[in-house]
Order: sequence, then C-alpha cells, then structure tokens
Amino acid sequence: MKPAASLSRSSPRFLALARIVGEKQVHIDDEFYRDCHVDAIKISRTPLAAVEVTTAEQLPEIIRIARDERFPLIPRGAGTGLTGGAVAERDGVVVSLALLNRILELDTQSQLAIVEPGVITQEVADAAAQVGLFYPPDPASLKESTIGGNVAECAGGLQCKKYGVTRDYVLGMEGYTMDGELLRTGYFAPDAPLDLTSLVIGSEGTLCFITKIALQLITPPESRRSYLMTFARQEDAAAVVAASIGSGVVPAVLEFMDGDAVALALNYLGWVDMKRPEAVLLLELDGSVAEIERDHAILDPLIRQNNPLAFESTPDGARREHLWTLRRSISPAVAASAPIRLCEDVCVPPSQFPSLIKHVVKLGKAHDLRVLSFGHAGDGNLHVYLMADKDNEETHQRIDNASADLLSLAVELDGTISGEHGIGITKRKYLPLEISSTTMEVLRKVKGVFDPEELLNPDKIF
Amino acid sequence: MKPAASLSRSSPRFLALARIVGEKQVHIDDEFYRDCHVDAIKISRTPLAAVEVTTAEQLPEIIRIARDERFPLIPRGAGTGLTGGAVAERDGVVVSLALLNRILELDTQSQLAIVEPGVITQEVADAAAQVGLFYPPDPASLKESTIGGNVAECAGGLQCKKYGVTRDYVLGMEGYTMDGELLRTGYFAPDAPLDLTSLVIGSEGTLCFITKIALQLITPPESRRSYLMTFARQEDAAAVVAASIGSGVVPAVLEFMDGDAVALALNYLGWVDMKRPEAVLLLELDGSVAEIERDHAILDPLIRQNNPLAFESTPDGARREHLWTLRRSISPAVAASAPIRLCEDVCVPPSQFPSLIKHVVKLGKAHDLRVLSFGHAGDGNLHVYLMADKDNEETHQRIDNASADLLSLAVELDGTISGEHGIGITKRKYLPLEISSTTMEVLRKVKGVFDPEELLNPDKIF
Repeated sequence: MKPAASLSRSSPRFLALARIVGEKQVHIDDEFYRDCHVDAIKISRTPLAAVEVTTAEQLPEIIRIARDERFPLIPRGAGTGLTGGAVAERDGVVVSLALLNRILELDTQSQLAIVEPGVITQEVADAAAQVGLFYPPDPASLKESTIGGNVAECAGGLQCKKYGVTRDYVLGMEGYTMDGELLRTGYFAPDAPLDLTSLVIGSEGTLCFITKIALQLITPPESRRSYLMTFARQEDAAAVVAASIGSGVVPAVLEFMDGDAVALALNYLGWVDMKRPEAVLLLELDGSVAEIERDHAILDPLIRQNNPLAFESTPDGARREHLWTLRRSISPAVAASAPIRLCEDVCVPPSQFPSLIKHVVKLGKAHDLRVLSFGHAGDGNLHVYLMADKDNEETHQRIDNASADLLSLAVELDGTISGEHGIGITKRKYLPLEISSTTMEVLRKVKGVFDPEELLNPDKIF
Repeated sequence: MKPAASLSRSSPRFLALARIVGEKQVHIDDEFYRDCHVDAIKISRTPLAAVEVTTAEQLPEIIRIARDERFPLIPRGAGTGLTGGAVAERDGVVVSLALLNRILELDTQSQLAIVEPGVITQEVADAAAQVGLFYPPDPASLKESTIGGNVAECAGGLQCKKYGVTRDYVLGMEGYTMDGELLRTGYFAPDAPLDLTSLVIGSEGTLCFITKIALQLITPPESRRSYLMTFARQEDAAAVVAASIGSGVVPAVLEFMDGDAVALALNYLGWVDMKRPEAVLLLELDGSVAEIERDHAILDPLIRQNNPLAFESTPDGARREHLWTLRRSISPAVAASAPIRLCEDVCVPPSQFPSLIKHVVKLGKAHDLRVLSFGHAGDGNLHVYLMADKDNEETHQRIDNASADLLSLAVELDGTISGEHGIGITKRKYLPLEISSTTMEVLRKVKGVFDPEELLNPDKIF
C-alpha cells in the first residue's frame, strides 16, 4: 500500500469541508484521524481526512464537493467492522456518522424505534428494554458498534439462530445516495414496490449514507435459562450440538468455543482456577416459563449423556452475566495478545460444523499460526482468528494462505465465506468462489445506480 | 384501450416461438389465450400470444427473440393477481410459467423446499405438511395461485400478522433477467453482498423471470383453536380487535368481515338459517397447548364483554374448516354476483381500522356502488370490493373515483395504498401519493439494470 497523506489545513478541500461541518470536525492529524485509519481488524489505510457530520443535511453538501473534485467518501460508524469496510481503500475522506446519535422515537404501541445511525447498538437494546420491548440482534461488538454500522454490515449476533439478524428488524431507512438526494425506503416510503431497504442492508456503505433507521422491536421473552458446559473432547461438544438440533429445541443462543479460545479468555480474565477444557458450549433458552421447563427436561439429560467436565444451568440474571463473561472476553483477549490477526467468519450447514472445527486445528499447524475458533454452532457460523506476533510480509502471507484454505474448505463443506462480517476488503477476492460473473455483473450495475462514479466506499465488495 | 390482435399462425414471430416451445404451447385463439387476457380483477388486455414454457432453458431463447424484435414479455402464473400484473398492457407475449411445476427438493433437516415457480401454493403447504413442516403464507387464492406469482407479488395471507408474508420465507431464487443470463440469488448464491432476493420479491415480474425458488419451512404449531363470532354492530367487533391487540395475545389469524360481505357469502353458500350480522370476526390461536390455554383465558372473557350475537370457539380441525368457510367464500361470492369489480387493498395502523371500515360504508353511498369490506384486522389491512353490474364507461368512472377516494383516505389515516396485492396497472397512478420523485427515480434505474429496454412486463408499477 502506498503511503498516502492527509490534506493540508490550507488546501481548498480542507477549507470546503470545514465550511460545511466546522473546522473542529475535520480531522487530519489527531487521534480521531488515526483511529479512522483502521477498523477492528487493523487493516491500516491513510485517508485524506476524517470528517464528523453533526447533521444529516451536511451530507449532500459533502457529496457535492466529493463529486466535483472526484474524491471517494467512506462512511464510518464505530469502526468495529472486521473486513475493512470502514477504511479508505483509495485516497478519500472518511465520513463519520457517529455524532448522529439520537433515538428519535420509541413507539410502544407499534413496537418500533426510529433512530439515527450513530446510536450504539446496546443503547438501542437498552432503550427498548426500558419500555418493555426487545431488540434482539446482538453482535459481540454491541457495546461499541453503531446501529448504522450494524445495518450496513447486516450484523448478526449470538441470538441470530432464533431471532434472525439485523435485516429482520429494519423496517425502513432514510439516507443519501451519491446524487445528494434524500432516499426514503420501507417505513419511510410505504408502498415502494421494490425493496430498497433490503438492498441497502448489508451493502457495507457502498450504496448510500444511512441517516435514519426505523427498527422493529418485539415483545421480550418471559424468562431465560443459561447453560455453560465444558468438555475434555470437542467430539462431545459437537454431539451435544447435534443432539440439541435434532431434539427440536430452538435455543436462543448456542455458542461454541474451542480450547485455545477458552484458554486465552481464561488467561485474560485471570481465572486461573478453571482448568483448560477442549471445548465449551454456552446455551440459552428463552420463552415462557412453561416452554423453558419443557425444553430443559429435554436438554438436561442430553447434555449429561455427553460427558461434560463441568455443567451449570441457571435461570438467574446475575449468574447469567457471569456465564457469558467467558464468551464475551474472547475478542478483547485476542486483541490484547495478538498484534497481527485476521478474524475469518465462515458458515457451514450445522451438520458440517464438527468437520469444520476439526480442520481449523490442522490449519494452524499447516501454516504455523496461532489459531482459535468460536462461534454460533446453531447456525454453523464459526469465527476463526488467525494470529501472529510479527508484523511483516511473510507473516501476512501465511495468514493470507491460511485464510484462503479456510474459505475454500467452507465452500467445499457447502458453506459460505462470510457468516456475518461482510466482504469488505479482506474477502472480495474470494467472492468468485461462490458468485457467478453474471450475478456479479448485476450487482455492479445496481451499485452503479446509487453511485455512478464509484466514489462511495469504492473498492469494497466489488 | 385499443383493440389489439393476436399473431397469425404464419407470422415469423409465431414460428420463432413455436420453434422454441413447440406449436401446441403457443396460444393465439383458444381458451388458454383468452384466459391470459385477464387476471382475477378482469382488466382485459389482448396479448400477441400466450406461450407456455416447459423448461426454464427455453426462456433465454424467448428473451433473445423479444429483444431482437422488440416486443414485451409478460410473466404469468395462475393469473389470480388483483392489480393487473399478469396482463399485457402493451402488445406483448404472455409467458406462462405454470408448467414449471415440480417440487424439486424437500429437506427436512434444513427445513427448506426447492420448488419451480408453477407449483400451486397449496401444494407447497401440503408437501411441507406431509413431512411435518409448515409453510405459513396463505393468500386467499392459495388453492389456485402459483408460488412464483406469490413471490412476484409478495403475497400475504390470513396468518401474516403472526407469521409474516411470502418475503419472510424466500431464501433465494434462480431466474433470467432480460440479458438472458441465469441470475442466482440468496440460497443459490451464498455471500452475494447485495440482497437481490428481496429486490425481486414483490417486483411483480418487472425485473426477471423466476425459475427456481428456495423456501424456508418452519416447525408447525403444536395446536390450534379457532373462533368465529358475529356482531350486531361493527363497533363491537372493532372493540374486540382493539382489546385483543391490547391484551398482548398474538393470534395467527384475526379476520374482519363486514355485514355486506357476510350476507353475500351466506347467500352464495345457501346458509339461509344464519341471520345477517353487521360484522364477523374469525380468530385463530396457535402454539403449544399451554400457550393456547393461557391466551384463551385472556380472550374468552374479552370477547364475551363485547356483545357477540353468536360465538363459537373450537380446537377441532374439522369444525375449524367449517368456521373458515364463510371467509373463504367471499371472493367466489363476489365473482359470482358482480361482473364489474375492483378489489382495493389498503392498509392502515390497526388503531385506525375502525375509522376505515366506517368510511367504507359511506364510500358506497357517495359513489352509488355496491361496496363490501373484509380483511386482516390484526394488520389493519382491509380489502374493499367496489362492485357494479353494468360494464360501461360511466360505471368504470364511478369505480375509479371511489377507488381514488379510498386510497386518499388510507394515506390520510397514515396508511398505505397496497397491503398485499401490489401496484400493477390499477394503482400505479397513485404511487406518487406516497413515494417521492427521488425514490421513484432510483426504482426506475434499478429496473433499468434488469431490463434496460423496458421489455419485461412494461408499464407495470413504473
């Protein structure tokens, strides 16, 4: 990657942007600017500048300048993405929507929320909970990621097998395409005969800026029961997953963690007492008290038959938080221990999940990398961290090779190369593994409708 | 509408089409051809011909001829649409996909079905039921309509408040755009970063021919309880609807029928014993036995408090079929009694539903038309038949005026002009009531990606 440079404070572009958003919101040399070089996966690119908009109406003005002067714009939320979607792949200006962070409306009768894109996902969930409602999508990053970023990436989460992903909760949007006009979809444009809402969800900021989102909320489950179980053998964990799926019980959460992931998290948490298992499952039931009782009666013996080392189940909310700690600590533990890392996110049919986790161990050995895996066993969605310590060409090459092997393996196992992290920069070269040139051509043309000059988050996906 | 004519048997176009599909499948003067002049709403247009494809691979050849000779193609399923989507608005060839009617795969483990577009919706539901699964979308036409037509129109149905509409069950598609190339979406193109599946659903045959559909099936509810209640006053029925929504109970079905709709159906059925009520509600609970018991304990007193004339509730499957008969007979009763009719399909917030049904009665008087209404009270989706006996200019004008009044009213009540029947021909002029010119322009350009020469179902929606 060529070393790019930021705008100078006296350049016409800097001045034009400063006129729109105010000089303080145009960053070219501070911490905010440097944060905008990367996302959570630490792919580093140097943007011309990073601009924070404070009102949605500033966007058409910024778009006009970008088109006149032909520089790219890169929409950004919290920068927690894992495929490079929010970094400037070409010389361009990062446009942060994080300050558009108001919850505009909470309608308990219609069970919906209208929010700006910069609201933190956890705040959406909290606001819903405060009025007795439930916003289910819960990506691991929910305490930092923005709802706009969640929509752009179609974030999933731990509860997605039962409750679906972000797509299933977006009723409509407002935003600006690169013609600078306000686009309204779904809830904001009833009767629109083509579903532009779904088109924008998961488009990774390549079609439009999102400035307002209508979200469906639902009635929360009456009750929950959480299960944490450890195993000396991955096969036993896999057997529990298979038996659970076969039983007809639909857990809200069914998370797998391999021994390396757990060991790293235990070390990070300082939980020195707990002996390293080879696999851990976190499972959660929710629903009416009667449903949970019924499902518990099925699950409890099924778990005990498969040799758990330790097994706890609890309906208690506080204890639940404790059981979840291990799962939630994996990503911060990786961030603290591995300066160079790639988080792959493959998805296979649940029946192939055991094969997949077995292969991941071999992958580390074959490419001389630290590797760990964890993910949503109920969906067959596995996250695999490929980790190294030295930041050099050779290390990156090894990670790249391991990644290519993993993605090919997922496709061989009838799976997909991206479960919920998007395509971005890191996976675009693998798209032809799965998508025909005809379909890709249609996708490119649809992108062209929204951004004919390829100035909006260019070189992502396509 | 100018009187058009069919192709002659010796014309080059006829011969070219006959070469592809066989002469017997090119219709220019038989009953099949005449059936293709109309859909369920009896908007009549004369196509050049009606062609039945027998394999999906014939489509690219037909497309090539249509493009070379610049005539439109109009995809058609069973012709049960209610807005004219399947009729030839311009001189064009109707292409029936009804013979592509195989269920290709039923995967009980993954709970999905792969079907061709010509399979009757009821057959999809039956095939799912035979392997212990459930396909919920149930438009009133389900015994005649094709699944491809359901997808093209994004059909809803009686259970859509609880179970969603066709959109919620389509995992992916194969089809041909007007470039004649095979487009694969969703399930058939994992990882496609833009959601082309959702774009095609509800696009009313304007974007592509659909040749294969992957459908999500779900686990059926354990049990059901059906309720039929009649009222002397519409207000009492409305009060039950409001109280039911307010109670937190989510019925699978909550259907309203006004007195005129019921009277027509009673007469059609020959049920002379039953006195005409002013409103009827059909309600159905489903779920576990425990859930139904809990909800029944809430609903039963709530219904009794609101002065039902008669009220029956039953968990019995055979009796259920009987209770449903009245609702299912409305459309055939209308078809038998009113040669000229328009079925409007407006949707308002459930809180505005009582206002809407009150206004409908006035509408008939104001425009001197027979009017009746029925629909999905749980969603605020009301179907309104505007009916007349004489097929002349003046009658059509009165129906048109009444329709315009009704649609404006729906928009005034914060509603939409189409609940589940699409836009087609009949509603396109009303789209600007709700959709900005900017959004409309984006929709038009997206259409252009799939059909640059406007030859696929032209003049629908746009």
